Amino acid sequence: MRILEKIDTHPVYVEPFHVDFTGRIFMGVLGNHLLNAAGNHSQRRGWGIGALNESHHTWVLSRLSIEMMDMPRQYEHVEIKTWVESVIRLFTNRNFSILRPDGTPCGYARSIWAMIDMETRRPCDLLSLYEGDILNYVVSEEENVCPIEGHGRFRFRDAQLVRTLDTYYSDVDINGHINSIKYIEHILDVFPRDLFLNGIRRFEIAYKAESYMGDRLSFYLQTISDAEYDVEVRKNVSDEAPGEVVCQAKVRFN
Amino acid sequence: MRILEKIDTHPVYVEPFHVDFTGRIFMGVLGNHLLNAAGNHSQRRGWGIGALNESHHTWVLSRLSIEMMDMPRQYEHVEIKTWVESVIRLFTNRNFSILRPDGTPCGYARSIWAMIDMETRRPCDLLSLYEGDILNYVVSEEENVCPIEGHGRFRFRDAQLVRTLDTYYSDVDINGHINSIKYIEHILDVFPRDLFLNGIRRFEIAYKAESYMGDRLSFYLQTISDAEYDVEVRKNVSDEAPGEVVCQAKVRFN
Repeated sequence: MRILEKIDTHPVYVEPFHVDFTGRIFMGVLGNHLLNAAGNHSQRRGWGIGALNESHHTWVLSRLSIEMMDMPRQYEHVEIKTWVESVIRLFTNRNFSILRPDGTPCGYARSIWAMIDMETRRPCDLLSLYEGDILNYVVSEEENVCPIEGHGRFRFRDAQLVRTLDTYYSDVDINGHINSIKYIEHILDVFPRDLFLNGIRRFEIAYKAESYMGDRLSFYLQTISDAEYDVEVRKNVSDEAPGEVVCQAKVRFN
Repeated sequence: MRILEKIDTHPVYVEPFHVDFTGRIFMGVLGNHLLNAAGNHSQRRGWGIGALNESHHTWVLSRLSIEMMDMPRQYEHVEIKTWVESVIRLFTNRNFSILRPDGTPCGYARSIWAMIDMETRRPCDLLSLYEGDILNYVVSEEENVCPIEGHGRFRFRDAQLVRTLDTYYSDVDINGHINSIKYIEHILDVFPRDLFLNGIRRFEIAYKAESYMGDRLSFYLQTISDAEYDVEVRKNVSDEAPGEVVCQAKVRFN
């Protein structure tokens, strides 16, 4: 039984402290808005984190790829539309469009989510969730299109350690994990100022493992071209051990 | 001529990525909401940053003191009320209350602002601004009360260097300055996790000088009691020079 529209609209106002030195919204702040839009969409349909937690399940973000033709700027009002593109047993693909008031797209995003059992931390069959209710909300390509490329693959061959940082109070979310948005901030902080002058065209991140307050994160940078870079984040690297991969990201600048 | 009410109400929703590991809103995020409330209040009355910039003036935040009886938590809706308490030639005192929907106060805040000339960076006479229009909006103690203590004085005697950090892309606002909110985050990050278990009672900050992307910030901690600490932030400290004081803060934990 479907009782709501399939696509939700989430209004966003670009606040002054949420823009970078060029006046464009920070990618991390935009990511936060996307996650809020996703959370609201799920919650309104009965499979939000609150409802899931009661049955000891939660959503875990696995991939997020954002591609922007034109980044929203300070004081702008934009709308995020979000919808479920597909559900494959253990994963769901959720898409986003970021639109100006006249409907012009600023950009799009794709994401992949798993639902996990909070005790075993293992993924669960999404089709068993509320008798497969999520399938009632799948949006076909005819109904709405996300015209950006899918998530890429990462291959780290000659990445160089460029930064190591300790994690603190402000990095951690209510679950005690380093929050998904803070990784985006820290990853972008490895780049010099001038790369941001024309904005970011595409940002991709793959979340691989959790890290916790106090973990030491090491950032490895691999140059693909003058405008494209991959970053791998590892935790608790030591002379003896390569550490564990926490996340991997690709940044393409304009 | 006064055409609007003196006091504005700014709605706030406490988003999931905006709370700490205890589920309380981050002090920096709350500070950001206060500054937005202040900005909107000024803008609606014609002396917002946008209007001021046209005459090459801008607002500069000098002091912010926040005292919370009960910090708002994840998914809560609260309201920020803000008003001008007084105007003294070069400074204006602006107050805030943070209220639950039933009117119960979560806390209050006080702030001091100067208007400066963007070229000379010197403070200007607020009473000359639009023929003293700001005086039409001053709220007397009978109209609304901010029952928390005023801004304290700082005396650093035996502060110890506890952290040094470089500043990056994510620290900087549209003016190229380290943003006022980022200082709050960085200051709180010097404290161990367990101090936050019962939340922060009071946070005070005095902004003294600007710092810029690439500046190295040094954090000096002075213990007043088990629950109260002062932090001084200096920029570009070296073996030869004590650096310049950028801001000073006081944190009182519950």
